[in-house]
Amino acid sequence: MKKIDVGKKILSANEKYARQNRQLLAEHKIMCLNMISSPGSGKTTILTRTIKELKSKIKIGVIEGDIQTDIDARRIKATGAPAIQINTYGACHLSAAQVSEALAKLPVKEMDLVFIENVGNLICPSAFELGENYKIVVLSVPEGDDKPAKYPAIFAKSKVLLINKIDLLKTPSQVDFDIERVKADARKLNKGIEIFPVSAKTGARFDDWCHWLAKLVKNLRCD
Amino acid sequence: MKKIDVGKKILSANEKYARQNRQLLAEHKIMCLNMISSPGSGKTTILTRTIKELKSKIKIGVIEGDIQTDIDARRIKATGAPAIQINTYGACHLSAAQVSEALAKLPVKEMDLVFIENVGNLICPSAFELGENYKIVVLSVPEGDDKPAKYPAIFAKSKVLLINKIDLLKTPSQVDFDIERVKADARKLNKGIEIFPVSAKTGARFDDWCHWLAKLVKNLRCD
Repeated sequence: MKKIDVGKKILSANEKYARQNRQLLAEHKIMCLNMISSPGSGKTTILTRTIKELKSKIKIGVIEGDIQTDIDARRIKATGAPAIQINTYGACHLSAAQVSEALAKLPVKEMDLVFIENVGNLICPSAFELGENYKIVVLSVPEGDDKPAKYPAIFAKSKVLLINKIDLLKTPSQVDFDIERVKADARKLNKGIEIFPVSAKTGARFDDWCHWLAKLVKNLRCD
Repeated sequence: MKKIDVGKKILSANEKYARQNRQLLAEHKIMCLNMISSPGSGKTTILTRTIKELKSKIKIGVIEGDIQTDIDARRIKATGAPAIQINTYGACHLSAAQVSEALAKLPVKEMDLVFIENVGNLICPSAFELGENYKIVVLSVPEGDDKPAKYPAIFAKSKVLLINKIDLLKTPSQVDFDIERVKADARKLNKGIEIFPVSAKTGARFDDWCHWLAKLVKNLRCD
């Protein structure tokens, strides 16, 4: 029986679209960040606060990936930023082809920064390039401090780790999260990873992240 | 070009092992529950507390699925229950073949109940039968109340929904979780789903779940 390497085929078709996306984004000097996490870690809340904090300085657009519903795109649009919802109807990650279609609907010429909020899944999305400049992984405090050890791939591949919901570190029932363990485990996998502990809900320590992000976008524009 | 239905092929090979597992479990009148959730919803903590509460009545074994590490199997073994760790090394769900190997290592003849703790992923594991009697989905409060709407498949397929970390409902920063919305959305997808709000950490409302579970195991044994 002839063996067919299906994994390679799928990745190659995806890579073709990823390359197209990368070219389009580079042409317009747009920074593109692919945000990956478990369901419910707070990706959309991070995005809405980031947009509000930076909207006088940076034009941000968002591509929202979800299995079903347009709940997240509606939350982004409420901030005034353009958002395109992709529904995967069961698929566990976004593909570069889907992102390509979404980019065609965004007013890219006006954008400085495009966030892709991937489907909530700490595993599968890390294997599919979408044409982004960098991946960002979000880990929220209630998920536990063992996640970099147990799900290493996405921590190894990300430019930034946002540790969200640090407001819950202060509650009596949330004492099991050792933030230093998370930092050490993430850096063991990825020496240069930038780590920002934040609370997207309360805004605690959000300035460091926004400052870093504004600089990243400025550097690309002035390159 | 000839099209090959790869999805069907993989599912069929998996279904063969799932059937074998189902037969082995039925032969020994063992209840088998496949536990599925996002990373960090508290599956292992639910299991360790359930084992402690029921160990005088029910003999429980656990099959632990993780991408890497044996952290979870060590936590189960500390309760005195047998546990077999499966590492998937990147794969986003357990397969029935892996469960078959693990069952061969468990003292199944002595067991009343086998829990399979799947890889932390709210999407992919729902598509792969492992030979279990039922699926159980765990949703934790900090993940948010929009998850049944956004990830419907696993809520539609599960016998039980455990809403974990209800202790966090009481903290000032956790007021955004509408438990009635979760119940209503889950029942829209799955009319007969059993729903138990619990805190595996504090033990709050854990009795209802343990009582229901003991009855489920007893009914199978006396069938």
